Amino acid sequence: MQVARTRDDLRATRASLGTVGLVPTMGFLHDGHLSLVDVARREHDAVVVSIFVNPTQFGPGEDLDSYPRDVDRDLTLLEKAGVDLAWVPDVEDVYPVGSCTRVRVEGPLTAVLEGASRPGHFDGVATVVTILLGVVDPDALVMGAKDAQQVAVLRHVLRDLGIAVDLVVGPTWREQDGLAMSSRNVYLTPAERAAAPVLRRSLTTVERLYAAGERDAETLRSLVRRNVSAEPAGSLEYVSVADPVTLAELERVGPEGALVSLAAHFGRARLLDNVTLPAAVTPPPSRVQ
Amino acid sequence: MQVARTRDDLRATRASLGTVGLVPTMGFLHDGHLSLVDVARREHDAVVVSIFVNPTQFGPGEDLDSYPRDVDRDLTLLEKAGVDLAWVPDVEDVYPVGSCTRVRVEGPLTAVLEGASRPGHFDGVATVVTILLGVVDPDALVMGAKDAQQVAVLRHVLRDLGIAVDLVVGPTWREQDGLAMSSRNVYLTPAERAAAPVLRRSLTTVERLYAAGERDAETLRSLVRRNVSAEPAGSLEYVSVADPVTLAELERVGPEGALVSLAAHFGRARLLDNVTLPAAVTPPPSRVQ
Repeated sequence: MQVARTRDDLRATRASLGTVGLVPTMGFLHDGHLSLVDVARREHDAVVVSIFVNPTQFGPGEDLDSYPRDVDRDLTLLEKAGVDLAWVPDVEDVYPVGSCTRVRVEGPLTAVLEGASRPGHFDGVATVVTILLGVVDPDALVMGAKDAQQVAVLRHVLRDLGIAVDLVVGPTWREQDGLAMSSRNVYLTPAERAAAPVLRRSLTTVERLYAAGERDAETLRSLVRRNVSAEPAGSLEYVSVADPVTLAELERVGPEGALVSLAAHFGRARLLDNVTLPAAVTPPPSRVQ
Repeated sequence: MQVARTRDDLRATRASLGTVGLVPTMGFLHDGHLSLVDVARREHDAVVVSIFVNPTQFGPGEDLDSYPRDVDRDLTLLEKAGVDLAWVPDVEDVYPVGSCTRVRVEGPLTAVLEGASRPGHFDGVATVVTILLGVVDPDALVMGAKDAQQVAVLRHVLRDLGIAVDLVVGPTWREQDGLAMSSRNVYLTPAERAAAPVLRRSLTTVERLYAAGERDAETLRSLVRRNVSAEPAGSLEYVSVADPVTLAELERVGPEGALVSLAAHFGRARLLDNVTLPAAVTPPPSRVQ
């Protein structure tokens, strides 16, 4: 595995790689990240993984400084996973001195959920991913489903800016007890860790109720609120039942299905999870018009 | 010559073109544009020209609606000039319905000169050029020196976003009497047209004074102001003697040279022109240290 730091290093190695799937990460890797490496390798000649804790997507008072880091361990894991090229840039390699160009995503898609809780977050995400795509020039961008709104925002950015890259979304990877894997899980105390799977359980209950025919969005939201409030270690920040493309809150789940997403605090950790309620199977056209 | 309208049309043809130089234009072509086609063709297998009057770079009250257009004539000229592919998109082909991603260039570079006169102008330019580059995927972006600040801003955008495209700048093309070619020259009445070459003459005088050793920036600016004010048909909006990279106004022209730029109104027409005062030739190193 090659390891690059500067843009020039990266480009020099990338030039010989054929088609590339890029997995952008903030490091402190877990099996969820490594599953994305597998996804990228299935469809491309080579896999590039970037490790970069992007300052522009953190707000004031967020955990930029304390975000967990262990680059040596990360590189060992990537080497074992068969990654071809790891890009571990410094801040100045991504944002050159005097950098003043930002990618902004306006409108309702970034005003809700994570965008409402973390003003400017998605501008930081859109900016850094645009830069990573510019420098790495991959054929596919491979991301995890856990950050559902991030995926929706980036899908928009790629289309809006005409960036011809496939956006490939890998499933959320989970611990045995259902907790979605996240680098931030390391913030959890043992008691919080034991309590946190309530998030996944509440979403599973929503799935079951939906499968049984429930379509009232507020009923589904209430279910999550009740589930999580029964767990004193956790505090729900939001639960959303939204259109899977626009992320507009729904009154009823229609034939296009829904994205059910939540954010919750367990001590120092702010955890996300989500589930997609599948679109209705289109019935065969009636034989009588 | 192929003519494409949608992104898909464009990409389908572009795929067979080898290396490409892209000349982005707003149409109503003149010899300045065609000189950029020649520049592009010298270094690349093929030339793509876009014709698109970009609404996002016009402010309220500007001439978006009245901007001169003649696409049929433009296409004839491009065909004759040996262009391989003309892209003539509708607004929705550049900005798909629901488009909400904008490229913003912050800081002093876009706060001065054209950026001060036309708030939001360079965000519109940066956004549309990023989209054109995304869709066309050229090897070089070829632009004219007349829009000097635009060139400086886009140079920043390409570097900041890691977009690996050569920025090639062709010289300003001029009428016999020195007036810089511009699609907006069509707005000039005969009397205004006769008066407008004062802009170029004032810049030529600056060049002569600089060559004779004048380094005081305010002296150079005053010279332009005096020259233009002697012409009643014109009204100078600004004259700048600035660092050629940062566009910060200078007190004295140092060894890095300067960009002298101006904007002036002649009736309905707002005209730009500029000249670069060359950097000092570095003297040979002294033989005695």
